[in-house]
Amino acid sequence: MRKRVPVTHLVAELPVTVPFVAPEAIERQSGRPLILRLGANESAFGPSPRAIEAMCAAAAEVAWYGDPENYDLRAAVAAAQGVALENVVVGSGIDDLLGLAVRAFLEPGGAVVTSLGAYPTFNYHVVGYGGRLERVHYRQDANDLPALADAARRTGARLLYLANPDNPSGTWYTSSDLRSFMESLPDACLLLLDEAYLEFAPDGTAPPIDVSDQRVLRLRTFSKAYGMAGARIGYALGPAEIMADFEKIRLHFGVNRVAQAGALAALADTAFLREVVAEVARGRQEYEALACDLGLPTIPSATNFVSIDVGGPERARALIAALAARGVFVRMPGAPPLDRCIRVTVGTAEQRAAFAAVFRDVWPAAAKGAGG
Amino acid sequence: MRKRVPVTHLVAELPVTVPFVAPEAIERQSGRPLILRLGANESAFGPSPRAIEAMCAAAAEVAWYGDPENYDLRAAVAAAQGVALENVVVGSGIDDLLGLAVRAFLEPGGAVVTSLGAYPTFNYHVVGYGGRLERVHYRQDANDLPALADAARRTGARLLYLANPDNPSGTWYTSSDLRSFMESLPDACLLLLDEAYLEFAPDGTAPPIDVSDQRVLRLRTFSKAYGMAGARIGYALGPAEIMADFEKIRLHFGVNRVAQAGALAALADTAFLREVVAEVARGRQEYEALACDLGLPTIPSATNFVSIDVGGPERARALIAALAARGVFVRMPGAPPLDRCIRVTVGTAEQRAAFAAVFRDVWPAAAKGAGG
Repeated sequence: MRKRVPVTHLVAELPVTVPFVAPEAIERQSGRPLILRLGANESAFGPSPRAIEAMCAAAAEVAWYGDPENYDLRAAVAAAQGVALENVVVGSGIDDLLGLAVRAFLEPGGAVVTSLGAYPTFNYHVVGYGGRLERVHYRQDANDLPALADAARRTGARLLYLANPDNPSGTWYTSSDLRSFMESLPDACLLLLDEAYLEFAPDGTAPPIDVSDQRVLRLRTFSKAYGMAGARIGYALGPAEIMADFEKIRLHFGVNRVAQAGALAALADTAFLREVVAEVARGRQEYEALACDLGLPTIPSATNFVSIDVGGPERARALIAALAARGVFVRMPGAPPLDRCIRVTVGTAEQRAAFAAVFRDVWPAAAKGAGG
Repeated sequence: MRKRVPVTHLVAELPVTVPFVAPEAIERQSGRPLILRLGANESAFGPSPRAIEAMCAAAAEVAWYGDPENYDLRAAVAAAQGVALENVVVGSGIDDLLGLAVRAFLEPGGAVVTSLGAYPTFNYHVVGYGGRLERVHYRQDANDLPALADAARRTGARLLYLANPDNPSGTWYTSSDLRSFMESLPDACLLLLDEAYLEFAPDGTAPPIDVSDQRVLRLRTFSKAYGMAGARIGYALGPAEIMADFEKIRLHFGVNRVAQAGALAALADTAFLREVVAEVARGRQEYEALACDLGLPTIPSATNFVSIDVGGPERARALIAALAARGVFVRMPGAPPLDRCIRVTVGTAEQRAAFAAVFRDVWPAAAKGAGG
């Protein structure tokens, strides 16, 4: 056998990591199907029926490349957000857009600030492009804004990642909190504001969109409230200058034609979105009541999931395993202090009831068996 | 307005380029719809009805992320190609996979060999990752294999791109030609063998797949004969070691769930594929007969397009414009010697007849007006 063609020094040194183990992989490992899929914050309410219809129609025309300029969707987003076309870029989900941002702004060896235990896929990109992660501890289960800004100043970071509402805690800041935070950032640092869960949050959570602010890129997705995670489509809002740089490196024909059609239809169906958001709010309350009934605190959430504080990482791990053995897929946050929790996605009413039954069943043994 | 957050030196210096202007962009510019879309080598025969059915069904379940391991599709490809699961990686089309290969193997400043006028999106990736393109002239309208191998040796290239069958010429080499070529490559150079058009080529075009050969990565797509360009899905076949490196940098959840379902169904419908390939062969003959009738040579093609030699780049440009004015979208190759041609995708029988009528109409003026 011939010798290998050498990969780059950077890739050779990268660890073998997988940001998330998929439920399908869990099923293949266990040989059993999962009965409740509540671990990836997918929407059990599906996409809008209008989006399904649009995707079906687009499937028949999938022989044609999708518009690489994503013109129709960008125009709809621009109109909805009150920005210009050149302030919008569409990507294959926020994951894709985060990768672009890291590639565009991070020199090898450069520092990047994020919260310890925040989005693993962002960290994956940073490490993959040779960046140095500066992780700031959560404070009272929320992103520690002053400490994040301090870290950006101290390390000369070019990028700072913040999710609002946050994943995996579910906590959120108000618009005015965020505006103060943005003002406190150094000029040479770009805030990647991941708003994947924004639709679930109270009014007044999102700061006004100001595309003249060169230091902020807003990231949105159709994966969560719009119920289209499998379609891989999201967008970024920001200064035209940043979008022009993305234009130099993005995969121009990268976004699926069916996804573009679905997202356009989903965006227009505001009534469906409102129903989903209302039902998710009910579901959060049910999970909170369930946890309360078992004497467990929950972290207040403005997302489509609730993090239930089960008392410690050992117990969380035991619970995840016990739930998995019963065919229930949930995840736990990866780092302290949140790893004392399990994170449960809001399902349909039926799924919530099924989860509650299994959780009540497995909780006593998990509580006893593992000290926390 | 604040100062910009600086992008990397590499990105700052990148030219603003778009590998391909889309037909949708042409329509927006002209304000007129295109009547015949024969410029992007899409399949006018669409995807298999079974694939459409699978995509429709998957659209209703698009709230769930697609399997990031693409297990079912990889298993089907592995079985069909007689390789192991770990020799297959699925990406968002060959474009995505080429980007991964460039990122994995190219150090900034490193040399990459390709033919002058070959695939622009590959060049886009190379430039985007700071590589140096070493372009080798076509020889008698085909890739010049000895000159490509020489260039790889001379420049110490880590990557060599070759499409077989070739785009935009349509020419192809046999399996034994390619095996000799592979033997002639330096050990430290990876051949990216783009086989996007392979299904249209005669038996004996593809060299046997040898995943123990560390110097070859085969690239396949569902965009062409399978009629799923808009779905963005393709795969690479190669050594497990390369796949393991891709695993460190690929976008794990990047491939659309609907596309995965469609590709799996498309792969199984071999009867449909055979029909498409047979009809495309008929279409090539029709285009050749049409050109012959007008006294124009064609380049022999093993693809779903025919390059018609119209006598020179000026004339080709004039024709492209004249055809566009009549709502016909075709492209011309970007560099000599092939830029004396227009490249016409094989459409349905009806589309071919419509193209022939318009082409006969505009040809005399274009032939007279532009000297070549």
